[in-house]
Amino acid sequence: MDERLKKQLNFVLEIDKEKNIFRQTHLSGHGRNENDAEHAWHMAIMAYLLQEYANEPVDIAKVMLMCLIHDIVEIEAGDTYAYDEENLKTQKAREDLAKEKLYSLLPEDQKLALIKLFDEFEAYETPEARFAHSMDNLQPLLLNHSNDGGDWREHQVSASQVYGRQSKTRLGSETLFQVVDGILKEHIRRGNLIE
Amino acid sequence: MDERLKKQLNFVLEIDKEKNIFRQTHLSGHGRNENDAEHAWHMAIMAYLLQEYANEPVDIAKVMLMCLIHDIVEIEAGDTYAYDEENLKTQKAREDLAKEKLYSLLPEDQKLALIKLFDEFEAYETPEARFAHSMDNLQPLLLNHSNDGGDWREHQVSASQVYGRQSKTRLGSETLFQVVDGILKEHIRRGNLIE
Repeated sequence: MDERLKKQLNFVLEIDKEKNIFRQTHLSGHGRNENDAEHAWHMAIMAYLLQEYANEPVDIAKVMLMCLIHDIVEIEAGDTYAYDEENLKTQKAREDLAKEKLYSLLPEDQKLALIKLFDEFEAYETPEARFAHSMDNLQPLLLNHSNDGGDWREHQVSASQVYGRQSKTRLGSETLFQVVDGILKEHIRRGNLIE
Repeated sequence: MDERLKKQLNFVLEIDKEKNIFRQTHLSGHGRNENDAEHAWHMAIMAYLLQEYANEPVDIAKVMLMCLIHDIVEIEAGDTYAYDEENLKTQKAREDLAKEKLYSLLPEDQKLALIKLFDEFEAYETPEARFAHSMDNLQPLLLNHSNDGGDWREHQVSASQVYGRQSKTRLGSETLFQVVDGILKEHIRRGNLIE
């Protein structure tokens, strides 16, 4: 087998580990914790189905690929919960190291392409990155909503924390932010989110 | 919320159940059984990374979406193991019913688009369908190879059964079939596959 293909297959095997990186979100039906690979799969399909609600036209193939790869760094850096203030401080440094290590398994051209895509996602500066982030925020919210807000209650998350994060959903999709806003208001009313 | 968006979000929540459909394949590192959502995520990234080995030019966005959705029917129809001769006989009928039921949750245009894509995948007649099937075959083989062929040993699978299935990998990618062939020869030699 030639060196290029060998590298590609090594990377393919390495990212299998993303299926063992568990998040704070629980699957619908009060299920187990969700892992990063499942979350990414869900986001990519959502991006396709909900693309009509993006604030700006998006290259949907690019958004989907962004969704699929956005958490690969967590194989090395671990998952950082959206409301874990301590770990959020070190998240970027940990993920930058992880990014270099993991993508270096690939041939140089593919390493550069995927790092560029990941950096674009992180920077929130393109329509694709903004819409992918909307999916990253909306996906766990829909699951948590279906589970009566259990993840928020478990972590005693406040409404202002959630609105802080979800304000970025609005950058990608005003329509989907309106959905989010309706859901949050309901959970504040029901006492699942601290005011 | 308007009816269209409500339908889309219902479908998004419904497909969360794909994360609970478990396959016979085990994760690398002699891990637990893999589920359909993880498998689909892995296939879609593989399709992107390995597209240069497709026998014919492919629309990679289409291949990726095909990979992502190809097992949604299993939420209703269950997973059918590739070497389960009894259940393979009823697979198409079960999946056709499931397809109608699940995709009917979506607005009509999206229902038709996704059923069309799924049917195209099943029919093996386009370059995209053939390459997506190569991923569907290669992905579990790589995991099983990394686990010393444990899945084949557990189910006492024969080399001719695996070659029967993997012959279709060749339709999508001659190069990747050569990789598969090398791996299978190794496992026959090591006694993990019955001759």
